[in-house]
Amino acid sequence: MKNKYFSILPIGGVQEIGSNMTLIRTSDEDIIVDCGLLFPYEECFDINYLVPDFSLLDPARVSSIVITHGHEDHIGGLAHLLRAFPNIKVFASRFTLHLIQRKLEEHRLKFTFELYDQHSVLKFSGVTIYPVHVNHSIPETCGLIIQSPNKEWGALYISDFKVDLAATHEPPIDLEKIKEKLSECRNTAYFLDSTSILSDGKTTAEGELQPQLRDLIRRPEERIFITLFASNVHRMNAIAKLAIAEGRKIVIMGRSLKTYMESAFETGHSEIPTDQLYLPEQIKGQSGKMLIFLSGCQGDFLSALRRFSYGEDGTFKPRANDLIIFSSKVIPGNEKKIARIYNKLTEFGVSIVTASDHLIHASGHPGKEDLHLVLRAFAPNFYFPIHGESYFLRKHYEFVREHYPKISAHLIYNYQEVVLGDGTIKIVEHPAVEPRLIHGRSLEIEKTQISQRRKMATQGAVFISHHRSTGHLEVSLIGLPLCANNELENLRRKLLEQIRRDLVSREDHYFKDQVKIATRQFFNHFLGYKPVTEVHLY
Amino acid sequence: MKNKYFSILPIGGVQEIGSNMTLIRTSDEDIIVDCGLLFPYEECFDINYLVPDFSLLDPARVSSIVITHGHEDHIGGLAHLLRAFPNIKVFASRFTLHLIQRKLEEHRLKFTFELYDQHSVLKFSGVTIYPVHVNHSIPETCGLIIQSPNKEWGALYISDFKVDLAATHEPPIDLEKIKEKLSECRNTAYFLDSTSILSDGKTTAEGELQPQLRDLIRRPEERIFITLFASNVHRMNAIAKLAIAEGRKIVIMGRSLKTYMESAFETGHSEIPTDQLYLPEQIKGQSGKMLIFLSGCQGDFLSALRRFSYGEDGTFKPRANDLIIFSSKVIPGNEKKIARIYNKLTEFGVSIVTASDHLIHASGHPGKEDLHLVLRAFAPNFYFPIHGESYFLRKHYEFVREHYPKISAHLIYNYQEVVLGDGTIKIVEHPAVEPRLIHGRSLEIEKTQISQRRKMATQGAVFISHHRSTGHLEVSLIGLPLCANNELENLRRKLLEQIRRDLVSREDHYFKDQVKIATRQFFNHFLGYKPVTEVHLY
Repeated sequence: MKNKYFSILPIGGVQEIGSNMTLIRTSDEDIIVDCGLLFPYEECFDINYLVPDFSLLDPARVSSIVITHGHEDHIGGLAHLLRAFPNIKVFASRFTLHLIQRKLEEHRLKFTFELYDQHSVLKFSGVTIYPVHVNHSIPETCGLIIQSPNKEWGALYISDFKVDLAATHEPPIDLEKIKEKLSECRNTAYFLDSTSILSDGKTTAEGELQPQLRDLIRRPEERIFITLFASNVHRMNAIAKLAIAEGRKIVIMGRSLKTYMESAFETGHSEIPTDQLYLPEQIKGQSGKMLIFLSGCQGDFLSALRRFSYGEDGTFKPRANDLIIFSSKVIPGNEKKIARIYNKLTEFGVSIVTASDHLIHASGHPGKEDLHLVLRAFAPNFYFPIHGESYFLRKHYEFVREHYPKISAHLIYNYQEVVLGDGTIKIVEHPAVEPRLIHGRSLEIEKTQISQRRKMATQGAVFISHHRSTGHLEVSLIGLPLCANNELENLRRKLLEQIRRDLVSREDHYFKDQVKIATRQFFNHFLGYKPVTEVHLY
Repeated sequence: MKNKYFSILPIGGVQEIGSNMTLIRTSDEDIIVDCGLLFPYEECFDINYLVPDFSLLDPARVSSIVITHGHEDHIGGLAHLLRAFPNIKVFASRFTLHLIQRKLEEHRLKFTFELYDQHSVLKFSGVTIYPVHVNHSIPETCGLIIQSPNKEWGALYISDFKVDLAATHEPPIDLEKIKEKLSECRNTAYFLDSTSILSDGKTTAEGELQPQLRDLIRRPEERIFITLFASNVHRMNAIAKLAIAEGRKIVIMGRSLKTYMESAFETGHSEIPTDQLYLPEQIKGQSGKMLIFLSGCQGDFLSALRRFSYGEDGTFKPRANDLIIFSSKVIPGNEKKIARIYNKLTEFGVSIVTASDHLIHASGHPGKEDLHLVLRAFAPNFYFPIHGESYFLRKHYEFVREHYPKISAHLIYNYQEVVLGDGTIKIVEHPAVEPRLIHGRSLEIEKTQISQRRKMATQGAVFISHHRSTGHLEVSLIGLPLCANNELENLRRKLLEQIRRDLVSREDHYFKDQVKIATRQFFNHFLGYKPVTEVHLY
């Protein structure tokens, strides 16, 4: 039976949006697909991100990771993976590899890699992988066609894609190849993107944005600002070309735009003439028609967009005759941050155009019509929605059941292994492990510690020290309302009284506990909540 | 000139959504309209809410507050106002007053009040106020028509409304009265709701929801859960009637639904027979067809909806053949909380229906067509968008300028006083004061203290004490990653070395500062950030 079958085991991304990581398990080895980061659902106080847990990875069985494209939810956990498994070889396309190299240089990590493109054949001992070009919102995105050596099984795995048959900035998704490679196989399974399943129609093609973008860039405002997802190199090219045709200078503002731009230049994806490109410091104080690209369309705290909108940028201050274009959408969770930016800009008198006003943003994910197009090209025997939150996976599952009743569709979550076996499939459940919280210098922080932080954040902190022989008592309040200072003398008196009365000869541990309890109760009475309290005793 | 004119001065709600409070200023007195709460834009760590600052209120000039309706963003700051100004008389309708009384009883506050309804005439020495019935999403909502005694000026002030001409659960908005009372005046001004200005059409009428709600309630699932805004008493009535007609028992689960329901009963707004109503404890363990109302459609932490969805409720556990209906919308900022709930419910196998799937929620605010209907009933000379964030006010302003060029429209923000003067208007700017943060037992907490909390939340805390003569040094870490404990001995050694070398004979203040700096640097090197550090010295 060796090598006849393989299985697909999602570790991240199939229950939440982000931290995408999947294993292709064969009898000889486990091939990793992607290793991304996730932003926390609940308030985790500046936690930078989460990465998948690696405890399911067997060092004896993992030696390769195939990266499908360069978005952070697919490459953002790589540094952590390679630190734990330094010998893993990274398979990536040129542009994606460039992004990965920059990232791993920051972490001072060396790694081995192998370039691939959509014509490559990645031969592993247990499976052969045919990358297949798909449309998405970053250059060089691939799906994977995975064949067992005997062609007993063929699986199509595309975590992120859309169908853009009219694309001119890149080829359309290669539906022919999907059909060809899967038709060779006896049994077939799809693993497809659920991100835009709530959208009934066809996802807007990138080219459809041209007319309205052109109209906006032709507007008379001297300064037009535009923000978009920094990885959308193709759209930057298109916008820059329109702006240059209107005699606008192109300014790039913000680190992430600069990073992607540089990778695009060095891998042949940029179509902007370098002599037309300016950095803010090169153009400071100049006037004339400009188009200024701003990083940070999600309103991130340190982004160029937020800095500009709050009037805090050194080069560009918002003015009443500025126009700003949001060629982007709001990622759920960022609504208030972005609303705040709209309000700040409005208060400066800046005119705002968003994708609610004009057709100036297209998603990179498949609506129902996109899925129909793939399914019409080739209909598999089995179907598994991936890349989405549980609610979206279920909607995707229901969609397939309704429209393709002959396909055997299944709802799977992270840690449920789909074994593509003897003419049928089996789902094997593994114990799920939660992703790990990463903070600061790439260190893991435990949930218990986050919960301590939450307590200090919501209730403040009190530090007390006491010297038994001198009777000295010091109290520090941190993050309590200032009116609590008026109660300090009161608290000290109460504690000293209690110490004299009950605690003089008690052992340290009991003493500390009693002082802590009394302090928390004291403040609870006054504030309505109990601050985190720590006691030192001498 | 005495009493000829008056002015309108918004203190809250005209730049943000919430904390609505406005002054009607006459030569004799200032009449307050509403006093609401606001939820913070940025993460304020469990801060319960914000209330408007009262420093502009002159005790000699304020003796009355007129409440337009019972939503929290209109009555939530009343306890704070009445504690500061105990002699203010509250004008409210019956249902609204009932809600206010319950709230102020919790605060153990006594107050004087006067009931009014849509037929009342509220005579103040400087102006006469005619309440006017409007449609909204809570019973007994009024707009205010304000006339100067000589009818030189008439203003229509409606912070929250929609136009529901087909309403059967209450009368339609009284456009006739608006027309009649304003036609009497020489000059007229509108102050109208901006909440739904991004919506082009007509806001859905409450009655339009009936067919799809009925279809859903007829579905075969034994248990149907439904969540909605608890103050929407009319919709609860409609849903309960449909459910009773289908032989379903009605269960009310959650505190806020119970509160509104009781107020509705006692003021004649409930249409649900009490013998058909159950509390969860009355029905525990029973089976049969039920419709269970759940509080907390915004996913609040302690709400019935969240408790149920996470499988944490004692009476109802989510089951694969349950149906849950979200007859509500997501308030911006709550997207992730609610997505999490969808996911949890999905993982239990519960079927979810939302307002994206069916026409089962109607906003309480005016789309552009609603505004056209009011403007066609009567077109004023002046127009001021209110009740919205800056971006929405501007969109509203642009809408009026585009469609009603003869009306003089103006963009105003909080603390900009509109003086309705001699045939024209003047805008007088007052220094703006930010709303106050309220936490715990209704106490104010300062922004500086919130910022201390933020630091502890994002960087953890270290508490160090040292006894000079014994050389004892104690260190507590709070909210640091557990790996930091391995560094503790290292830190202690470094600090003791530094103390011996440099600090033995230095004064306390300098000593503490140096230990703090060294500690923060030590952790910065290791963690990549500097914990909040406090030092006690003996």
